[in-house]
Amino acid sequence: MNYSMIRYILAWVFTFEGIFLMLPAIVGGIYGEKQGLVYLAIAAGCLLVGTLSRIRKIKSKVFYSKEGFAAVSLSWIIMSLVGALPFFITGEIPAYEDALFETISGFTTTGSSILSNVEALTHCSLFWRSFTHWIGGMGVLVFIMAVLPLSGGSIMHLMRAESPGPAVGKLVPKVRHTAMILYGIYIVFTLVEIIALLITGMSPFEAMTLTFGTVGTGGFGVLNDSIASYSLASQIVITTFMIICSINFNVYYLLLIRKTKEAFMNQELRYYLGIVFGSALLIAINIKGSFDNFFMAFHTALFQVASVSSTTGYATTDFNLWPEFSKTILVLLMFVGACAGSTGGGIKVSRLVVFLKAIKSEVMSITHPRSVQKVQADGRPLSNDAVRRVLCYLGAYVIIVLASILLISLDGKDMTTNLTAVMATFNNIGPGLNLVGPTSNFGDYSVFSKIVLMFDMLVGRLEIFPLLILFAPGLWTVPKRRLAKKKKNFE
Amino acid sequence: MNYSMIRYILAWVFTFEGIFLMLPAIVGGIYGEKQGLVYLAIAAGCLLVGTLSRIRKIKSKVFYSKEGFAAVSLSWIIMSLVGALPFFITGEIPAYEDALFETISGFTTTGSSILSNVEALTHCSLFWRSFTHWIGGMGVLVFIMAVLPLSGGSIMHLMRAESPGPAVGKLVPKVRHTAMILYGIYIVFTLVEIIALLITGMSPFEAMTLTFGTVGTGGFGVLNDSIASYSLASQIVITTFMIICSINFNVYYLLLIRKTKEAFMNQELRYYLGIVFGSALLIAINIKGSFDNFFMAFHTALFQVASVSSTTGYATTDFNLWPEFSKTILVLLMFVGACAGSTGGGIKVSRLVVFLKAIKSEVMSITHPRSVQKVQADGRPLSNDAVRRVLCYLGAYVIIVLASILLISLDGKDMTTNLTAVMATFNNIGPGLNLVGPTSNFGDYSVFSKIVLMFDMLVGRLEIFPLLILFAPGLWTVPKRRLAKKKKNFE
Repeated sequence: MNYSMIRYILAWVFTFEGIFLMLPAIVGGIYGEKQGLVYLAIAAGCLLVGTLSRIRKIKSKVFYSKEGFAAVSLSWIIMSLVGALPFFITGEIPAYEDALFETISGFTTTGSSILSNVEALTHCSLFWRSFTHWIGGMGVLVFIMAVLPLSGGSIMHLMRAESPGPAVGKLVPKVRHTAMILYGIYIVFTLVEIIALLITGMSPFEAMTLTFGTVGTGGFGVLNDSIASYSLASQIVITTFMIICSINFNVYYLLLIRKTKEAFMNQELRYYLGIVFGSALLIAINIKGSFDNFFMAFHTALFQVASVSSTTGYATTDFNLWPEFSKTILVLLMFVGACAGSTGGGIKVSRLVVFLKAIKSEVMSITHPRSVQKVQADGRPLSNDAVRRVLCYLGAYVIIVLASILLISLDGKDMTTNLTAVMATFNNIGPGLNLVGPTSNFGDYSVFSKIVLMFDMLVGRLEIFPLLILFAPGLWTVPKRRLAKKKKNFE
Repeated sequence: MNYSMIRYILAWVFTFEGIFLMLPAIVGGIYGEKQGLVYLAIAAGCLLVGTLSRIRKIKSKVFYSKEGFAAVSLSWIIMSLVGALPFFITGEIPAYEDALFETISGFTTTGSSILSNVEALTHCSLFWRSFTHWIGGMGVLVFIMAVLPLSGGSIMHLMRAESPGPAVGKLVPKVRHTAMILYGIYIVFTLVEIIALLITGMSPFEAMTLTFGTVGTGGFGVLNDSIASYSLASQIVITTFMIICSINFNVYYLLLIRKTKEAFMNQELRYYLGIVFGSALLIAINIKGSFDNFFMAFHTALFQVASVSSTTGYATTDFNLWPEFSKTILVLLMFVGACAGSTGGGIKVSRLVVFLKAIKSEVMSITHPRSVQKVQADGRPLSNDAVRRVLCYLGAYVIIVLASILLISLDGKDMTTNLTAVMATFNNIGPGLNLVGPTSNFGDYSVFSKIVLMFDMLVGRLEIFPLLILFAPGLWTVPKRRLAKKKKNFE
């Protein structure tokens, strides 16, 4: 384990969190809120810690995937621990575990809240709360990679661990350029949505915070009823950007370099759009009785479907009151999640596609035992290892979900609440059903359950294995060779 | 596809169903019930159809796994369609779809019922209902194999398709002898339990029917309150045999040939017993408040845990009223199921063990990329193909469960009811929670939902792929070579 390299990366994480925390401090200044000073102080602290930790030199640049995975997991944990401080110190969220829950929910772009009255927060805290979505959406380490000339191709392991999806690839030969392109597209989407929301008549503050929540597919709003009280035009803009940001960003890169045909041939994209519009249509038919016309039923259905599928978690209606069939569709969409390489969470459509094909090839191998069945993706055959990795991912996913449900069932809430609470946090969606439905919040859970759900949010955002390997035996021990060397030096 | 061989096997299925139907006819005679004549008539019909269909000679003895899978699936479907007739013709279950539900539930050893008043049935129908559990537990085709000198080693495919578990092996070189040993052990357990229950003071009729339900891990009882009103001694006997019959029968064979050490080294056995007694202990602690002493709490917990784990489905208490934590444990046990090679259902402990090891080796391959990680079972490394097959099985399992929940949600019942209804039928357990809890029944579901749940019972009992390949493209077409030959003959 290359500890000095991990320390170096964590130092940069501190530094950048310090820079990011300046923004809510500025917002506090604009609105004349004294809480802005808290943000300023913590930002200064982060910059100091970051700079000091960077003084010692890196001993070795050797960097394998286990270092990448560990560095990413630790970065996210530290980011969250620090990011929760302002909520706690300003007293706006009195319990630190609640502040941490809210911050992890923000960075992981979950959007589950323990607050019953969001509107009581100051502007600077609301801004920070939404801005964590923006940071977490594309990933802070990807951001650092885009900005800093970090050394070596092995730094790719960081990106692989932080970016969602089964197979993170480089768009261009250099990792740094890939990171820059991704953030470039992300920033363009952010600006376009802010402008579009301003045109529909939103205030600049609302346009910015809601945009952070949309493009990061997070889901924190600034009003207690989420998006319900905004105009139809605003809702349509948000629907559009929820869908846009839950699509694989490779598609936009292909469009950018004018490979339009390849972009639209993307298998995952077609499956994903099919799922979203198909589900919206089924739900619209199911709920049309409570609407004046089919358009409004479809608009409402599409908003919630896009919100759940993209794992954003905004709501314009209390879907807890929908008929059972529509609610079940939403729960199934929670499993599916968004596309790989997007800012969304969940299992990811591409994994499910591999998965369905593996099952199909299994059935075919029984009926045609002599033919060799290869699982293909986008026309290319997938290696057995890749298929096995996807299947293992799904397995670990199911086990963690079930174990989490068992642990939080100790609080005595009903099964649908527990099931959807875990699904909503693990898949980084936000609201669930029943007691954690869109009009309720997670504040009623015990501290123990909140810790379980925080773990679920992190493990879901980082796609299980980076966080799991922190617990793998033998990871933190100094290798025998080095111990032997030390011993030798001593003799 | 070798149609003549499949026809031959189905003919024997008819014949044996005819023989089995004689038993309830005899019971009807003993109790002087005229419904016994219905059983007699249908038995005669089965024997006639069976004999007539055996007249035509078998064209070819070529028999691959696809023939095995198709023959088993079709056998079970036909067995159920015929087995439902007496319930319907005697008028004891007025709707044929309900009679079919009850019969499939019987043969698949599920034990889910649509009857609200079991005690209203005649003795011969109660006997037949419980006896279907006994037939289905070890499998009708395995029975036929044990009794008849069917030709060729390729007949093994039948056993592989019908017996539960990921890797069905022969105990002894000859398939027929393996089938005979399995049925021999099964019959001994049946006789021992009947005698034990008679000693605890049960009537012969109750001892026999409840034994069929126990050793087949079915769950149909003869009283409306399942097992609640029987004596403590009877309940302990039933608990014991539920556990015994949900253990891999290979263990008993090893004991029989005095390989005691090997028998107890069986990994699945140790995991399974750990799960059962661990869960019972956790639940006992959770519910001890409502009991006078810890022994009764543990007895009650162990009975329900053994019932769900072995996928029997008997109940001595309404576990619907248990605290949420205990109920969640039961739902998780529904997933796990029994051991492979037993009469129980569910995913099977051995599959889960493989699954957990695959995940562990995945984590290890990240931390130690250069070491080769092989998944092992019982000390032997498993082939990648075997691991992939288990993972695919789990995948298909999850998809069918989720799709079923969606389809039956159209009835508008709550999510916990729908989830546990699917779990209880797919895993061949019997009762679920809420509206399908141990004191309720499945009669309230629509005909459409009942069809979905019947499919789930069959697909669960036959472990998915045998039934799925019936829908595989190209299975039922005549091979091109044969078509060409026919054409040639014609010219």
